[in-house]
Amino acid sequence: MPDYNIHLSRFGNSMMPNPIRKMTKLLSRPEIVALGAGAPSVETFPQEEIAEIVSKVMRDGGRAALQYGPSRGLNSLLAEVSRIMHGRRVEGATTSKIVITTGSQQGLDLVGRLFVDPGDIVMVELPSYIGGLIAIHNAGAEFVGVRQDNEGISTDDLRAKVESARASGRRVKLIYTIPNFQNPSGVTLSAKRRTQLVEIAEEYDLLIVEDDPYGELYFDSAAEQPAPLVSLSPERVIYLSSFSKVLAPGLRTAWICAPEEISAKTELAKEGADLSSSILDQAIVAEAARSGLIERRLPEIRKFYGDRCRAMLDALSRYAPEKAKWTEPTGGFFVLMEVDPRIDMTELLPEAIESGVAYVPGQPFFVDSSGSNTLRLAYSKESAERITQGIEILCNVLKRRAALSD
Amino acid sequence: MPDYNIHLSRFGNSMMPNPIRKMTKLLSRPEIVALGAGAPSVETFPQEEIAEIVSKVMRDGGRAALQYGPSRGLNSLLAEVSRIMHGRRVEGATTSKIVITTGSQQGLDLVGRLFVDPGDIVMVELPSYIGGLIAIHNAGAEFVGVRQDNEGISTDDLRAKVESARASGRRVKLIYTIPNFQNPSGVTLSAKRRTQLVEIAEEYDLLIVEDDPYGELYFDSAAEQPAPLVSLSPERVIYLSSFSKVLAPGLRTAWICAPEEISAKTELAKEGADLSSSILDQAIVAEAARSGLIERRLPEIRKFYGDRCRAMLDALSRYAPEKAKWTEPTGGFFVLMEVDPRIDMTELLPEAIESGVAYVPGQPFFVDSSGSNTLRLAYSKESAERITQGIEILCNVLKRRAALSD
Repeated sequence: MPDYNIHLSRFGNSMMPNPIRKMTKLLSRPEIVALGAGAPSVETFPQEEIAEIVSKVMRDGGRAALQYGPSRGLNSLLAEVSRIMHGRRVEGATTSKIVITTGSQQGLDLVGRLFVDPGDIVMVELPSYIGGLIAIHNAGAEFVGVRQDNEGISTDDLRAKVESARASGRRVKLIYTIPNFQNPSGVTLSAKRRTQLVEIAEEYDLLIVEDDPYGELYFDSAAEQPAPLVSLSPERVIYLSSFSKVLAPGLRTAWICAPEEISAKTELAKEGADLSSSILDQAIVAEAARSGLIERRLPEIRKFYGDRCRAMLDALSRYAPEKAKWTEPTGGFFVLMEVDPRIDMTELLPEAIESGVAYVPGQPFFVDSSGSNTLRLAYSKESAERITQGIEILCNVLKRRAALSD
Repeated sequence: MPDYNIHLSRFGNSMMPNPIRKMTKLLSRPEIVALGAGAPSVETFPQEEIAEIVSKVMRDGGRAALQYGPSRGLNSLLAEVSRIMHGRRVEGATTSKIVITTGSQQGLDLVGRLFVDPGDIVMVELPSYIGGLIAIHNAGAEFVGVRQDNEGISTDDLRAKVESARASGRRVKLIYTIPNFQNPSGVTLSAKRRTQLVEIAEEYDLLIVEDDPYGELYFDSAAEQPAPLVSLSPERVIYLSSFSKVLAPGLRTAWICAPEEISAKTELAKEGADLSSSILDQAIVAEAARSGLIERRLPEIRKFYGDRCRAMLDALSRYAPEKAKWTEPTGGFFVLMEVDPRIDMTELLPEAIESGVAYVPGQPFFVDSSGSNTLRLAYSKESAERITQGIEILCNVLKRRAALSD
């Protein structure tokens, strides 16, 4: 038996925290209220409309949809993304700045590989998306966590941490941020902080990786949404977004929008990584965008998640133990809850599942290993009724445990 | 304007050699006989059957085909691949050894990232597939080229090169080989050499990356095909294959079959790289395999390419200049031609295109920069008539040039 000599150090982490992974079987039991999984609800997928589009693509696009295609992406899809970027108040997002990726996960992976030398520092939010952390970590980055509050990443803390890293001779390369309805916190970066963040990036010559999968899923009016960072500093921001949450994630279609010099290198990196994303998926998504299907369905998707979010926040207000705190998202999928500091939410998970509710412990999202008394609650999967029921169960578990600790 | 500080060293190469890239527009002119492009013919894609399968998947599989799925791949597809591996005389290829990838290009990329530390030596054939070279190079590998003859990689030269690399203190990690109808040479590794290759891998504790996209496309009888390397040494071979050439490459569905320890790490690396390949593509390919569509169509696909190959070989016999030599493939897409050493086939390309025929210069496939008087001829795209015509034009260009050199 050979010694495989695999470099596990770079690929040792799974996106699914171990305590959850161990309980996968339990989690699939339908009686458990699933507040853990962060996937969009299958109820939001326009199955029939997509079936019609696929028929059309197979009929009209013909064999081209089955052949190899350009690494950067199908021209028809690049044009649609350019239009979408314009709708998001980003000027000059021509197709030469856009590269289609196999989900934003691949975008994050390519960005990591293009920019990170082993040992480079990347500034990330506390907490941040585990998948993004893993992709960037796989490229050899070391993380410095930056505090977040209800306005998003703390620019004061960011400045202090950048200064401190540089003072100790480290090279800071990137700031990785999820500015809208962040995963896992649900928090949105305020307009004022966006300006400050861009200023810091310019002052210290850093690039910003703006990961925006949830931006379209706001619950208030469009007018209240702050403009993307890339619109404030197009030369300094690598913007990533996806069709996963507004159409269907199984189609694995997302994009990077970046300055031409960067997008050209991303295209080359993508070519080496998989030649291209699924051509059929791209043709489907391009037609879904062109025909107006995606745009047309956004209001109902926003309402769908908005109603569930309200159910969760209402239930938390009603049932949460005294000292608990939670974020109040205005879009996206997630609430971050913080409980009695004596309670370790990883350790509590089996008991919660036993009682009938699942969540994701917060600690794996914190690169500084803090957050043991936090948890991510997703309202994307279950109905409002089930969410209410799940939160009640969860809060009872929390209260029971707190009583034991008293 | 920020300094993007991109690490171009690792992503500077494109799969499309520059002399060809510059002529992309010319190449798309229909009057030019395309013997360059190595894609399968769209005529082999079962468009109608796939359209029916898609309808069925969307109807029966429903929203599951649009949701996130397992990083390792859909269970239904893993089961089909396991069955296919059994059909290829590989015992014990259980689903726990298989990982679905976004084309074999992603498999090669993941293998590179898992196994190669910067500066490690990877032994490759002279010439070898540019896409494979780029993926492994992106991980930081240095290449040592090993001679090939009509029986495939020279095991004598391999042994000498491994000894020499080790003598100079270098670490040799992998042998990258395309044993069946190699890209670009069309050569097949003989059964005897397969045994020797595996012995060398065991003697020097190396792993073999067996890249087999073309294995099913043989023109003779199945009985004459040597067994895959992985069947000789399951613990030492990472086997890659794909549905691109037997179904449709736009569906971007391929697989790795490797010892469980390696496939588990590949799954983790894949999770960080793109979460999963297209779920819809996987569902389509699983049904195409399950229903027997792929198996049923193989005989006609073999005949399709076999007829074209014969047309090319016949035309070469008829028109080739005196000193020219070429390989005689028994499957796959490619013939490698070697011409008068005074002719640089990169330099000659514009003249050939001007005359009405395109090919790929051989030099970019040789990691030691030899092969300037070689070219890859693909018989996968054009009809037998056009191939005959293209070879005649090409040979006239070659004769004209040789006459000028005399």
